[in-house]
Amino acid sequence: MNATIIKNGVVLTPGKRAERKDIRITGKTIDQIASVIQPTREDSVVDASGKLVTPGFVNTHTHTGSTLLRGAGGGLPLQEWLRTVMWPAEATFTETTVRAASDLAMAEMIRSGTTMFMDMYHLDMLHLAERVTEVGMKAVLGRGMIALDGRWTERLEAAEELVKTIQSDKSGLLKAAVSPHALYTCPPDFIRKAGELAEKYDVIRHTHVSETAQEVQHHLSSHGVSPCRHLHELGFLTPKTVLAHAVHVTEEELLLLKENRSAVSHNPRSNLKLGSGVAPVRKMLKSGIPVGLGTDSAASNNRLSVLADMQTAALLHAGTEENSTAVQAEDWMSAAWNSGASMLGFPDSGRLEEGSAADVVLIRSDRLHMTPDIHERAADHLLFAAESADITDVWSNGKALMREGSLLTLDEEKVRAEAEAEWRKIAESNV
Amino acid sequence: MNATIIKNGVVLTPGKRAERKDIRITGKTIDQIASVIQPTREDSVVDASGKLVTPGFVNTHTHTGSTLLRGAGGGLPLQEWLRTVMWPAEATFTETTVRAASDLAMAEMIRSGTTMFMDMYHLDMLHLAERVTEVGMKAVLGRGMIALDGRWTERLEAAEELVKTIQSDKSGLLKAAVSPHALYTCPPDFIRKAGELAEKYDVIRHTHVSETAQEVQHHLSSHGVSPCRHLHELGFLTPKTVLAHAVHVTEEELLLLKENRSAVSHNPRSNLKLGSGVAPVRKMLKSGIPVGLGTDSAASNNRLSVLADMQTAALLHAGTEENSTAVQAEDWMSAAWNSGASMLGFPDSGRLEEGSAADVVLIRSDRLHMTPDIHERAADHLLFAAESADITDVWSNGKALMREGSLLTLDEEKVRAEAEAEWRKIAESNV
Repeated sequence: MNATIIKNGVVLTPGKRAERKDIRITGKTIDQIASVIQPTREDSVVDASGKLVTPGFVNTHTHTGSTLLRGAGGGLPLQEWLRTVMWPAEATFTETTVRAASDLAMAEMIRSGTTMFMDMYHLDMLHLAERVTEVGMKAVLGRGMIALDGRWTERLEAAEELVKTIQSDKSGLLKAAVSPHALYTCPPDFIRKAGELAEKYDVIRHTHVSETAQEVQHHLSSHGVSPCRHLHELGFLTPKTVLAHAVHVTEEELLLLKENRSAVSHNPRSNLKLGSGVAPVRKMLKSGIPVGLGTDSAASNNRLSVLADMQTAALLHAGTEENSTAVQAEDWMSAAWNSGASMLGFPDSGRLEEGSAADVVLIRSDRLHMTPDIHERAADHLLFAAESADITDVWSNGKALMREGSLLTLDEEKVRAEAEAEWRKIAESNV
Repeated sequence: MNATIIKNGVVLTPGKRAERKDIRITGKTIDQIASVIQPTREDSVVDASGKLVTPGFVNTHTHTGSTLLRGAGGGLPLQEWLRTVMWPAEATFTETTVRAASDLAMAEMIRSGTTMFMDMYHLDMLHLAERVTEVGMKAVLGRGMIALDGRWTERLEAAEELVKTIQSDKSGLLKAAVSPHALYTCPPDFIRKAGELAEKYDVIRHTHVSETAQEVQHHLSSHGVSPCRHLHELGFLTPKTVLAHAVHVTEEELLLLKENRSAVSHNPRSNLKLGSGVAPVRKMLKSGIPVGLGTDSAASNNRLSVLADMQTAALLHAGTEENSTAVQAEDWMSAAWNSGASMLGFPDSGRLEEGSAADVVLIRSDRLHMTPDIHERAADHLLFAAESADITDVWSNGKALMREGSLLTLDEEKVRAEAEAEWRKIAESNV
């Protein structure tokens, strides 16, 4: 089998010194990493001189279907923004809106080096499953369920249909999640049933929890128990559970997460933009709770760039902890790469190691904003200076999704044009 | 006189709805803004379709001479980082190091849309004054003074020489500052003398204050008075004073700043990266204290992009105040543009108005990460999505510094090569 050899790049690995190395991709796998790899005549050679080499970034929480709401209603607090902007607009969404939105999301994610994401959305997820495999990304997909109207069976059946479809897929790119939206949009018994469904198929449980102080207060006064304890009592905290946000959680709740080996998707840009607050990530990491990084939807970010969220997180927690070493660079890289991938059920992704899945990203470091471009500073450049325009090449499972700045599996101009056209339809229908 | 007409761009103005407008630049000035401007045959026409049009960004605090230390010693707290990384490296700097560093800084600033900056550095500032006018940016320059060794006269004379040189310059691009480094590096009587020097020439007073909690504690125990009150007692707080950082300031100190009409350079990325903390910007703005945005040096940022600092600030204060409307978008735009320019003594800059200085920036908004690209969301795209690679064109005082992504007054490849070569010299001399 012909291989691709990525030569002369500076390889970044959490906790290790950045080093110039060559990497060979054969099929879907990184099968060699060495100081010098000699290509055979059949191999393709990619020159990564002046570039950093990283694993594909992993987005542990997003809602690709709402990407057309990017920047809508900026400056509103979460509940008001959901009630007055997001939900009314989403009520007008058709299949074509959501397809245009997801393509836009995947195009932006690939451009910013993301190869894997976990998506929670209530519309058109069967189509998304198909589309992800066409585009060549990896994804964990869960049908977002809001269950205040009593139509529980309908919701759970649709969720189950998605799980079954994904489990019959042979691409190796997909996994399923069961995703009740949140404790404030799903009655406790519904959460329990959702957990049972996840158990039946051995898939990820994914929900929003304790995003705002107000939400936690409401939950305490309605139910007399903290949200994470409530999830625990409902059987929802497992080693295959990923909780989005967990901004306002107590030490006791962190202990429950730790004991249940549940993971957190930290979504710093969304939490900041919506005024939700700052999650206690240093404490989570210190307890050994797995932490990944999520963009949340473009509507509250406004990027879908895990790189941007990693950079925001690195600045944010050093600053708010008033301790520049509160969380180490290697912990942010793990969150963006291997920890994120592991919590999504892809333990062989998110790492540049022999035998790992070939999810690889090249990032130019020969830029003004990363000069001097020296190995000892490569991690600092990545965490505090690189931007998505510096990313030139992306492989997912050995398949090239972007080469030399051009997307290969999505038509960028068409994706943009369709997104604009779909938004115009919605805007006109609301006049 | 031939004019440049910028056509079809979406003009962003703090507090106003973004609107498609044409802008005419004649000489150094914006002399017309209108829905449609018909060019004469002699005029140059720039098509800004698919672009945002903003004023030049203003960097109210930086140290361009130390740009080669970008990313050095990442993860150390401020005092340790100064003592073990910054000051030892700077002790080896020669004239050529600092010139390469300043050119690198100016190139990166122009690329990220910055047309004006205030620089505090202790080396080679006379040369920088000349270089700024060649490059065509605007700058306020002050010789950074550390005065713990008793050689006060020497320091003050060098500062005065810079002030006199700048005041004899006819370009209109330069202003002078008197810049004692900080209360912890300058004895109180030296600060008083520095203030008197600024008074004599009617120039800006610029110093660091209350950057870390530790520094404030030390000052209180050594001097029995808070840093800002101390500056006030030393006659240093005036309407021409710009204080860098002011992270750890009390309500009483904010009142002193307000009463003296002194301004603050908020440097969020540096304050976060170094673990210094979060400045009370909402309170400052509520008190009417002018707030600008500074990158601080590349060594602690690692960017020299006011756009990046504005974006970080917008996220940070919404999140830490747990209120997405704590500071309005228009306040961040004013800080980055007109408030910043005014506090640096250029009240006609930082605004897109007829009669203003022609400091103009074009930013592509036809990008995946700013789709849908609609006027109502332009401010949100700028604050939460744009990146420096989206910036294509920059004019300062009517002179084009970047056109269609290419720097015109600096040779980008040469700037990068010289910076790398100078850093290698330093690294080798330290072996």
